Amino acid sequence: MTVAVDLNSDVGESFGRWTLGDDEAVLASVTSANVACGFHAGDPTTLRRTCELAVAGGVVVGAQVGYRDLAGFGRRFLDVSARELADDVLYQLGALEALCRVSGTRVRYVKPHGALYNAVVHHQEQARAVVDAVHAYDPGLPVLGLPGSVFLDAARAKGLRAVPEAFADRGYTAAGTLVPRTGAGALLSDPDLVAARVLRLVTEGVVTAVDGTDVPVRAESVCLHGDSPGAVAMARAVRSTLDGAGVPVVAFAGGPGA
Amino acid sequence: MTVAVDLNSDVGESFGRWTLGDDEAVLASVTSANVACGFHAGDPTTLRRTCELAVAGGVVVGAQVGYRDLAGFGRRFLDVSARELADDVLYQLGALEALCRVSGTRVRYVKPHGALYNAVVHHQEQARAVVDAVHAYDPGLPVLGLPGSVFLDAARAKGLRAVPEAFADRGYTAAGTLVPRTGAGALLSDPDLVAARVLRLVTEGVVTAVDGTDVPVRAESVCLHGDSPGAVAMARAVRSTLDGAGVPVVAFAGGPGA
Amino acid sequence: MTVAVDLNSDVGESFGRWTLGDDEAVLASVTSANVACGFHAGDPTTLRRTCELAVAGGVVVGAQVGYRDLAGFGRRFLDVSARELADDVLYQLGALEALCRVSGTRVRYVKPHGALYNAVVHHQEQARAVVDAVHAYDPGLPVLGLPGSVFLDAARAKGLRAVPEAFADRGYTAAGTLVPRTGAGALLSDPDLVAARVLRLVTEGVVTAVDGTDVPVRAESVCLHGDSPGAVAMARAVRSTLDGAGVPVVAFAGGPGA
Amino acid sequence: MTVAVDLNSDVGESFGRWTLGDDEAVLASVTSANVACGFHAGDPTTLRRTCELAVAGGVVVGAQVGYRDLAGFGRRFLDVSARELADDVLYQLGALEALCRVSGTRVRYVKPHGALYNAVVHHQEQARAVVDAVHAYDPGLPVLGLPGSVFLDAARAKGLRAVPEAFADRGYTAAGTLVPRTGAGALLSDPDLVAARVLRLVTEGVVTAVDGTDVPVRAESVCLHGDSPGAVAMARAVRSTLDGAGVPVVAFAGGPGA
Repeated sequence: MTVAVDLNSDVGESFGRWTLGDDEAVLASVTSANVACGFHAGDPTTLRRTCELAVAGGVVVGAQVGYRDLAGFGRRFLDVSARELADDVLYQLGALEALCRVSGTRVRYVKPHGALYNAVVHHQEQARAVVDAVHAYDPGLPVLGLPGSVFLDAARAKGLRAVPEAFADRGYTAAGTLVPRTGAGALLSDPDLVAARVLRLVTEGVVTAVDGTDVPVRAESVCLHGDSPGAVAMARAVRSTLDGAGVPVVAFAGGPGA
Repeated sequence: MTVAVDLNSDVGESFGRWTLGDDEAVLASVTSANVACGFHAGDPTTLRRTCELAVAGGVVVGAQVGYRDLAGFGRRFLDVSARELADDVLYQLGALEALCRVSGTRVRYVKPHGALYNAVVHHQEQARAVVDAVHAYDPGLPVLGLPGSVFLDAARAKGLRAVPEAFADRGYTAAGTLVPRTGAGALLSDPDLVAARVLRLVTEGVVTAVDGTDVPVRAESVCLHGDSPGAVAMARAVRSTLDGAGVPVVAFAGGPGA
Repeated sequence: MTVAVDLNSDVGESFGRWTLGDDEAVLASVTSANVACGFHAGDPTTLRRTCELAVAGGVVVGAQVGYRDLAGFGRRFLDVSARELADDVLYQLGALEALCRVSGTRVRYVKPHGALYNAVVHHQEQARAVVDAVHAYDPGLPVLGLPGSVFLDAARAKGLRAVPEAFADRGYTAAGTLVPRTGAGALLSDPDLVAARVLRLVTEGVVTAVDGTDVPVRAESVCLHGDSPGAVAMARAVRSTLDGAGVPVVAFAGGPGA
Repeated sequence: MTVAVDLNSDVGESFGRWTLGDDEAVLASVTSANVACGFHAGDPTTLRRTCELAVAGGVVVGAQVGYRDLAGFGRRFLDVSARELADDVLYQLGALEALCRVSGTRVRYVKPHGALYNAVVHHQEQARAVVDAVHAYDPGLPVLGLPGSVFLDAARAKGLRAVPEAFADRGYTAAGTLVPRTGAGALLSDPDLVAARVLRLVTEGVVTAVDGTDVPVRAESVCLHGDSPGAVAMARAVRSTLDGAGVPVVAFAGGPGA
């Protein structure tokens, strides 16, 4: 049996004078780049540079769309209507697409960011609004999200490819869901441990839950972080472990070219 | 000899709760719609609705790109670097393109707005930045601007189609330039007078300057306003006068379809 | 028995190029002006002009604090933390205070705006955050809100003066609560009817509910609107009816002077 | 003869998720804190925390007012009108004042930031607008600026205390002006050299210009930076050198208390 996996990470989240994360380092480890689109982070020059770096590194670009909330970095739920949200998503998609185009690539998938990501796990109206926007823009664009979310369900129902992801540095419950951030074992920080878990997830389809049992987790992509030196180290450990084990690390959405 | 002319106007400049102008009325008179792109005005839902109205009315959509200055409506010079300006233009172009795409059309030309429009009459670096952005995005996109501006010169030098425009409601000097806004005769408000001037401009290529002499003015498009009841009345007068005289009013940039 | 009442209205909600409402007209009818503070609406020059108009008209200025959401006009719930909300309220309060100071007045009360107003009817954490901010800034500042809201309860518990208000143009249920906006009889538009209802509310302490019964409503202030010609007409009718009946219309928070 | 000097630095320039500078470290070296006010940088929670840190460290708070330009960090000239600029300054002053008040201090001086700082060296209208705003708010507030600037001249003419500052890490010409940033010797990076220059500036009133001559420079405050590890090291070196030499390092604008 052949297994392969995609690794994705958030990049392009600097804004003007403010730098966030080490995009060059993280782009060396992943195959898919969730590039911010200016609403929660990312000025146009940052987006262009990030797209250029992604192209140079052979990394596929996706649009990480978020709430219009720079002050809150898109991490605060905003009760936006379906119509406004769909139009906000289209605006962001198109904006990033232009910066991709001049960098020699295209937007190849969409992933909601922060509080929007969390909202569309359960919020039917917002989930459908994002799906409707993506579908209206390009029905061939896959979306990346949480397995079991109403977002991925709505995407599938609309005919979009729905790509489930796992989180490298998060603990899982025996039911296969993420341990809430405030719970014991929610966050993992040991690069070797995390890398071993990701390898097992990819090759066996299971992770060890916080109660010690093995639970099945189905994911076509694994999300890594890059906004701290520790996160970069973890990303490198995951990538080198997968490479060492001969697991192909391949973008789920095709090549980076235009 | 066959003459024809395009009529253009700024639309899509509402923002959230705030409405500006009567876009439906103005779109009934013009052939080219300079749609705001969110930096000086225009939220995504406004942009989408405006694109849909343009398509319904057979009006061609152009991107009216501006400085990132909502509080100043893009009417204050901003000393942005060439790189930032080019990327800001690309971002705006792409954002509007996405809302065009789902409305069944495309961005067919680019016109700078407000203080940026005025800056690129003389400002070499900013003029070239806008031109570079448009060229990188799509070398087939025409740009609309002031005759004699460094912007149109730079566009031509880069191989872009440069479309000069005249202003229906502005007085001209004997040298063929606009009378500064604070000068006597700078602004015209009589719809019939304005319509007669536009007709003569189109059919004879001249306007009567403030000193009474006739001066040649070369324009492929005439800019109308729509942000007041008086402006809408003037737009209607110009259009009906041209229609009545049998002058074809035709978009300079092709049809509105996708 | 002597009765008196305050009339309040939202003003200062223009932003840059965009004008909203007829502030001069509405300030001629009310005694308390809920002036926007820049987060949901109101640029600094608008705020200053509004404060100057209020002083000229003998109208007391209050700070209408809102979510940081210009695109949504503060009408979309934002899940901001207590700490951020308290600091956002302080920032807005101080900003308006400076523009009051140079206009010869001071901020004399605080009223939440839009979605924040609705949130603090039930949302304990956000209600307490607003109260904490007001108390830290000046424990002598009254707050204006919905009778029975956790906001007014929290304000009283902290020692602030809590001023309940009624809505001139809204229907009431037999339980004394507002008919939801989508319900039958939610919105009233007849100026004479509204004025008669306000008079009865002030002099008898009752309103006729949508089921025809009289329900007691306790309010020290009545909220009017001014963002449409119809709203201005209604405000004038209410004021002239109260004046004609000899009911003193008096600001609840003292005079407008500095 | 007794000499003393103030040391000032920009702080409070983080924004939401984005951190800039090491405010705690720099506040340990300076006596005056130029706290951002939200227009070029600084969210309300950052401002409050910064004011609290300043109070805890016995550092005086000043308002660092800037252009409304988060994306450009206030470093791009904005051609704002005098009226808008004055109102923008008042808004920022009041906003910071509120966060000072709840932190147990007050705004004790005003310093323009970035491109506004540079503009008011020569731009009469903008210089006077800032001065007018400060004077209208509190004629007892000093302003901090470049010696010889029209800003300090306008401030003095209006009766404000005008405090000239020197730059620790900048080269000076033989005429006593700053070497332009792109010139040779414009920027100094050796902490010991910089500290020695500041000591000489304070005790002798001279600096060694780039041509080797000594030029008189009159300054009541010296500006340090804190937005990089090297800048923090330089700030510490300057402070310890002055302390070691027995030079009193004292805020020019009085104590930090409320």
